[in-house]
Amino acid sequence: MNKTELAATIDHTLLGPTATRAGVEKLCGEAAGFGTASVCVDLRHAATARRALGGSAVKLCVVVGFPHGMTSSSGKAFETSEAIAAGAEEIDMVIPIGAAKEGDFEAVRADVAAVCAAARRGPRPVILKAILETCLLTDDEKEKAARAAVEGGADFVKTSTGFSTGGATVGDVALLRRVVGPKIGVKAAGGVRDTATALAMLKAGATRIGASRTADILAGLDESPRP
Amino acid sequence: MNKTELAATIDHTLLGPTATRAGVEKLCGEAAGFGTASVCVDLRHAATARRALGGSAVKLCVVVGFPHGMTSSSGKAFETSEAIAAGAEEIDMVIPIGAAKEGDFEAVRADVAAVCAAARRGPRPVILKAILETCLLTDDEKEKAARAAVEGGADFVKTSTGFSTGGATVGDVALLRRVVGPKIGVKAAGGVRDTATALAMLKAGATRIGASRTADILAGLDESPRP
Repeated sequence: MNKTELAATIDHTLLGPTATRAGVEKLCGEAAGFGTASVCVDLRHAATARRALGGSAVKLCVVVGFPHGMTSSSGKAFETSEAIAAGAEEIDMVIPIGAAKEGDFEAVRADVAAVCAAARRGPRPVILKAILETCLLTDDEKEKAARAAVEGGADFVKTSTGFSTGGATVGDVALLRRVVGPKIGVKAAGGVRDTATALAMLKAGATRIGASRTADILAGLDESPRP
Repeated sequence: MNKTELAATIDHTLLGPTATRAGVEKLCGEAAGFGTASVCVDLRHAATARRALGGSAVKLCVVVGFPHGMTSSSGKAFETSEAIAAGAEEIDMVIPIGAAKEGDFEAVRADVAAVCAAARRGPRPVILKAILETCLLTDDEKEKAARAAVEGGADFVKTSTGFSTGGATVGDVALLRRVVGPKIGVKAAGGVRDTATALAMLKAGATRIGASRTADILAGLDESPRP
């Protein structure tokens, strides 16, 4: 895999309370330079990112219900509609993790379905990723939450927000890939900071990487395709 | 100060991704027993808490834009309306912390004002608390953010979410009290886990305490009023 191919799997990410407009603009410039799949930002910065991406092929990914997932389903749907109105082409939502801890996977499915319905009302196709926050779940809960997310309409399951007690692990990525089968995406996010880790996630079954240290991840690879 | 008086200053709190309905029901029972000012829960659990509180005098406090504050202002207003429809009497919103880091305190004011407007559209008076996340701000930013929150209509400024790099400090509580004057509330939240700390916060100018370890905080005090 060369640098261009790896970059195309990365959601170049700047999230959280201290993210500024200037930081988001820098992120977008970097993403266009690297050729990442998307930039991933908070809803507050969606319009800034859309403007900064300009005519670039980099998609705009916006998080919803982030990072705890414990707002209402209708609140998440509202955020989704706003994100899409601001130009989002991908939505990374957090499932109601507490519902998974209660064993109420129907509530997880319904929550994802509410966001999916909002996404489908938009004017363009939207990729929906459901963040499970695997570090807070047992393996059984991970499996059931992933199934519920797919039943609710998620195009991807995603390991982590990057704001909890742990990030993506090779074991969790492999578990999710086994559970969701070959047609659903798996995004490894949280703590993916170097080339070796990123490649290990892809080998384990990830089809997308969430990362802020994209430059470090790409630094370990050649520019041009291998012969 | 006796146990009853201290309890009346406390928002008994269960927030975050792993909070379950059973946990919220237990919280509400405890709050009624202690006689706390409120229970503080995520929007997902607002209706559960309202039912569990029944006819108790304990208020229902719901968090909005929690814990990063980086969703849209209209998203926070939407959550506020939903929380009030579910019975919330107090709203603890997170300011757009990134806007404070940009020095854009007009954006902070406008964000609080949007939530305040939504709260005022409800059928009953609502107490609005603006969470500044003081651990992420310089003293100058704390001061300007507090002023902006009050200008936006906040009834209280609150130090912390409990989910960042630090919680309430006596110094920050004193700073906020000095900035907002005597008529606005100051809520000390995050890391207040024992009687001495709670009393120190009140002495520094806090008028409300956010705590999950309410039993431990109250354990250090007498049941009955001192003569």
